[in-house]
Amino acid sequence: MTSSHVALGPGGEFDLVRTMLARWGTLASGVGDDAAVLDLPAGDRLVVSTDSSLDGVHFRRSWLTPREIGARAAAAALSDLAAMAAAPRGMLIALALPEEWVGDVAAIADGIGDVARATGTPIVGGDITRAAQFGITCTVLGSTPTPIRRDGIRPGDFIYVTGVLGGPAAALRALERGDVVEAPLRERLARPRPRLLEATWLARHGVHALVDISDGLGAELRHLATASCVEVRIELARIPVMRGCTLHDATRGGEEYELIACSPHALDPDAFARTFALPLSEIGRARASPEPLVTVMRGEGDERVDLGEGYDHFSP
Amino acid sequence: MTSSHVALGPGGEFDLVRTMLARWGTLASGVGDDAAVLDLPAGDRLVVSTDSSLDGVHFRRSWLTPREIGARAAAAALSDLAAMAAAPRGMLIALALPEEWVGDVAAIADGIGDVARATGTPIVGGDITRAAQFGITCTVLGSTPTPIRRDGIRPGDFIYVTGVLGGPAAALRALERGDVVEAPLRERLARPRPRLLEATWLARHGVHALVDISDGLGAELRHLATASCVEVRIELARIPVMRGCTLHDATRGGEEYELIACSPHALDPDAFARTFALPLSEIGRARASPEPLVTVMRGEGDERVDLGEGYDHFSP
Repeated sequence: MTSSHVALGPGGEFDLVRTMLARWGTLASGVGDDAAVLDLPAGDRLVVSTDSSLDGVHFRRSWLTPREIGARAAAAALSDLAAMAAAPRGMLIALALPEEWVGDVAAIADGIGDVARATGTPIVGGDITRAAQFGITCTVLGSTPTPIRRDGIRPGDFIYVTGVLGGPAAALRALERGDVVEAPLRERLARPRPRLLEATWLARHGVHALVDISDGLGAELRHLATASCVEVRIELARIPVMRGCTLHDATRGGEEYELIACSPHALDPDAFARTFALPLSEIGRARASPEPLVTVMRGEGDERVDLGEGYDHFSP
Repeated sequence: MTSSHVALGPGGEFDLVRTMLARWGTLASGVGDDAAVLDLPAGDRLVVSTDSSLDGVHFRRSWLTPREIGARAAAAALSDLAAMAAAPRGMLIALALPEEWVGDVAAIADGIGDVARATGTPIVGGDITRAAQFGITCTVLGSTPTPIRRDGIRPGDFIYVTGVLGGPAAALRALERGDVVEAPLRERLARPRPRLLEATWLARHGVHALVDISDGLGAELRHLATASCVEVRIELARIPVMRGCTLHDATRGGEEYELIACSPHALDPDAFARTFALPLSEIGRARASPEPLVTVMRGEGDERVDLGEGYDHFSP
């Protein structure tokens, strides 16, 4: 507990808070008051997002360690700040905790702490409640003078994607079948990296529309096309598919937390790759269109191909 | 849907978002991007808190309407901004939604909208996921140049409480017994009011420590005493007990969302009551103490009385 915390009273709930604070050390600040107080750099705009991860919905306890579950929840939430090219300023963790998860709180806190430390994000508050279903709702606060929205894509834009795709979907497929999962694939599922610094680089180099891939490449491209009413024309052969994954994994799998970036001019993928040891692939262009459209070129000509609906919690 | 929203793609999840946006109208802004962007008044500090309300833990579906459940979750979260004397700037709503609750989404949104409208709080984002247990996690963003923390209480302070206490506990007691609940008591449980404007008044009149009563008067007084290591000396007869409630309801019952305010000088309860049609009661004073202490005076002399541990999710 740092000196910036308000002293906490007695009780089992505060004991759990103390357990987490002990794991977080100086990563946590100002916990214990009714609300947290933050100061943003002058001239910055506040960027904020909230994201829930529930046992049995977003992960299965048998597939991931408690530490990975904590890390994944924090990374998924922070990825939304990356998608706005915002710098992280704080996060709040709301835990819904069934009795049988109480013993895992320290490990979950460690996972959250891993990501907070790696991304320089202070943990500024939260809530803890007993529950029938385990869940983490992570709210992230970031700031930047110039947030990059998803509706900035314009006809003529170059469309890029960071990293290689398919890992999380391929890992899930193997887990569902009970197969052994190769370590690099498992790592992509269990320890996603929010592309925060990469997003800042992209914004500095002129990118004017940005999303993260949480619902799958196809679904996100459709979101982009819809948000600005353009045609998004993708070259199938240019989609960066991770070794050991299918094209289907790469286009339909969610929870990649890679970025799709749209730029009015060509970017320098080599400079990006040198800086971040991560590929940046041009996968297509945007074109004027009377209606939102995702078109895929497969070599033998243009074709409308379904790149997948992405994951929708409420579709049959 | 206002023009400030990014156009949403197809799918059942987006349909639910659209249902909520339709109920909220201009209350909602900027929903649909990866994260929301907010601008705070220059010189203000950001104040932020997150609060979960779960079915079977914080309420029972059979006791409250879906609209009340929505209103209650939003009010409980906003009360934490009142406890910092911050003005509300935005809220994010994360819904965990079992199949059997899907039909209630419009009514829940209406309840959240009622509170957003009454308090002038824009709804700036959220998350929706299927779940086994219904829950709302509401994250509130506020700002003020001078947040009031809970650890500002000093020896000599006058200790005030807003409103009259006991209603939520008495209503819960009646509901648990299957009794008819009087309307004013039920209203205190089902439609709590975050004391946002009241908090601003208190801050303007010199209050330098502030909390809201979410865990019960006794528990919050102990939190206050602990945060600043003082003795909090309360006159039992001065605790404002709501008509139809016991002293036990008033001191041990949680979810009051009234404020405890500590001031270095006497305040003018009449001026407060004229402004807000709400009593402001001086219930005691703070004194120097080598250890945090809550002491209660019952007329016949000083006595340490247990004002209740408050509600602790993880104590046996």
